[in-house]
Amino acid sequence: MPAATRTPNVVVLGGGSFGTTVASICSRRAPTLQWVRSESTAADINDNHRNSRYLGNDVELSETLRATTDFAEAAHCADVVVMAVPSHGFRGVLEELAAELRPWVPVVSLVKGLEQGTNMRMSQIVDEILPGHPAGILAGPNIAREVAEGYAAAAVLAMPDQSLACELASLFRTKRFRVYTTDDVIGVEMAGALKNVYAIAVGMGYSLGIGENTRAMVMSRSVREMSKLGEAMGGARDTFAGLAGMGDLIVTCTSQRSRNRYVGEQLGSGKPIDEIIASMNQVAEGVRAASVIMKFAAQYGLSMPIAREVDGVINHGSTVEQAYRGLIAETPGHEVEGAGF
Amino acid sequence: MPAATRTPNVVVLGGGSFGTTVASICSRRAPTLQWVRSESTAADINDNHRNSRYLGNDVELSETLRATTDFAEAAHCADVVVMAVPSHGFRGVLEELAAELRPWVPVVSLVKGLEQGTNMRMSQIVDEILPGHPAGILAGPNIAREVAEGYAAAAVLAMPDQSLACELASLFRTKRFRVYTTDDVIGVEMAGALKNVYAIAVGMGYSLGIGENTRAMVMSRSVREMSKLGEAMGGARDTFAGLAGMGDLIVTCTSQRSRNRYVGEQLGSGKPIDEIIASMNQVAEGVRAASVIMKFAAQYGLSMPIAREVDGVINHGSTVEQAYRGLIAETPGHEVEGAGF
Repeated sequence: MPAATRTPNVVVLGGGSFGTTVASICSRRAPTLQWVRSESTAADINDNHRNSRYLGNDVELSETLRATTDFAEAAHCADVVVMAVPSHGFRGVLEELAAELRPWVPVVSLVKGLEQGTNMRMSQIVDEILPGHPAGILAGPNIAREVAEGYAAAAVLAMPDQSLACELASLFRTKRFRVYTTDDVIGVEMAGALKNVYAIAVGMGYSLGIGENTRAMVMSRSVREMSKLGEAMGGARDTFAGLAGMGDLIVTCTSQRSRNRYVGEQLGSGKPIDEIIASMNQVAEGVRAASVIMKFAAQYGLSMPIAREVDGVINHGSTVEQAYRGLIAETPGHEVEGAGF
Repeated sequence: MPAATRTPNVVVLGGGSFGTTVASICSRRAPTLQWVRSESTAADINDNHRNSRYLGNDVELSETLRATTDFAEAAHCADVVVMAVPSHGFRGVLEELAAELRPWVPVVSLVKGLEQGTNMRMSQIVDEILPGHPAGILAGPNIAREVAEGYAAAAVLAMPDQSLACELASLFRTKRFRVYTTDDVIGVEMAGALKNVYAIAVGMGYSLGIGENTRAMVMSRSVREMSKLGEAMGGARDTFAGLAGMGDLIVTCTSQRSRNRYVGEQLGSGKPIDEIIASMNQVAEGVRAASVIMKFAAQYGLSMPIAREVDGVINHGSTVEQAYRGLIAETPGHEVEGAGF
């Protein structure tokens, strides 16, 4: 940025692991205020430079990061808003924000998921509640704890306006957190929402003892299947082959910490989905997304066999064995133009 | 195929693990003859339905597969040729074949690599030595042993003529070996030749203890970098996001059996490349390919930082730490249109 420009105040709304990690990064570049609901989390951040609840005791946050529980204070000073609240609270926070926020302030979502009930992408909700505020998303293969611990990682920041994207990317970027830019907001949001279903498919495969070839096949065909729907909805194919698509899918499928992969493995061991969900303290987004994809597939007239089989196991009593048999029964066609698995 | 068409005789040239696996698959669909140099391998295939040398004792081959050491016999009866010889012997075998082979017989290569010295793709060599013979390639995330053991896998068959590709794909296809088609011969061949260099990059990372985010980042950016060169050479971007690109890269980067990944890990432990090569009984294609990519990059005016850093370690005395520092020093740009890492 030219030296004469005032550094924008960044406000991060939400106190979870990735929100805190991004807030800590931003605070090294720009005055950054993180709004959290919990007094004790705010105190932990301000006094101990930690968010022990979400990032454990070993991750030290930037000393310049300040936290508050005062929503109005945060909303008033924001030149950039980073939305790090769960998808079910996203609209509510924006509605609160609408009364306080200055015009034109850009809103960057960190949320990989769709709104329950409406199936809207987060940037669509921003467009609805905060018209005139440029809306984008920052996503990629970013296990929060690893980013916070300083392992190198990359993400892509999608904003409709590339000049704004470049300015904002420089706030989020460090030597070890590489922020790329794109204008494909739809593609990045859809990749984030869709990939969890495919991670469940791979997780189911692990329980069947699939080989490394098989796993790579399911992942490659998953990227193709995600692209197909993403493109139908207005996203770009390249996004699905990039960090938010393939990159995030790789992490989600291979990481031991992945909730969606875990769900797939548990389904494979024969546990009913309700029992699996009850045993987890966090939501596996892919469980809900499976039926959402099937609705989109019907709406856009697309065949999406991998999602169909995952949906079959989660919602229609299929077994994991039947799911994989269902995939294998599909005849392969043209790799890119073919309709099926 | 319509019932009236005569089933083509398939001839597989070469006795290695993947050639034998493909030959065994084909022999369930069509009369298949495998030419091998070694009398004992031929006897092992004919008498024991095994290729113990390359596939161990547990893999049972199809009883209908026949092997011979008589090159002329094989060449004479071929309606389809499958080339499963190493890249350094490819031209020589084709030259022998030229005198014997009937016109128009298609030639499908299983070889992932370029000809040493000329840097030609295998199908280019077919075009030169056997003009009039349609040339293609079958490739994907296919660890031979896993395919032979019956784990599900997928590959893509690239031929310029899609109608021919579809006919041939049906010869190679089983329920568990899913053969897709494409017309992008250049892309599939280049993906196979390039991915080994990127597997070395990821292998180097393992030795540095990179995180899962970092690995996914390097893999995603590798697919982008491969695409860039592949497109400049006439390939299609989609191919690099598909089975022969991303799919094969995933297997090569994650498999414990991958030679190229092993090379990267050994380089990271500080061993000189000559010593690593001497300790391996098989060639790691990526070692040679690194400098070849740099020649192509110069020729097409492309910046290819991942390949550059791998080449630096293999050929110019860099350390693995320097290589990763070199990547991190690059400023991220537009995810798709950006020139650097």
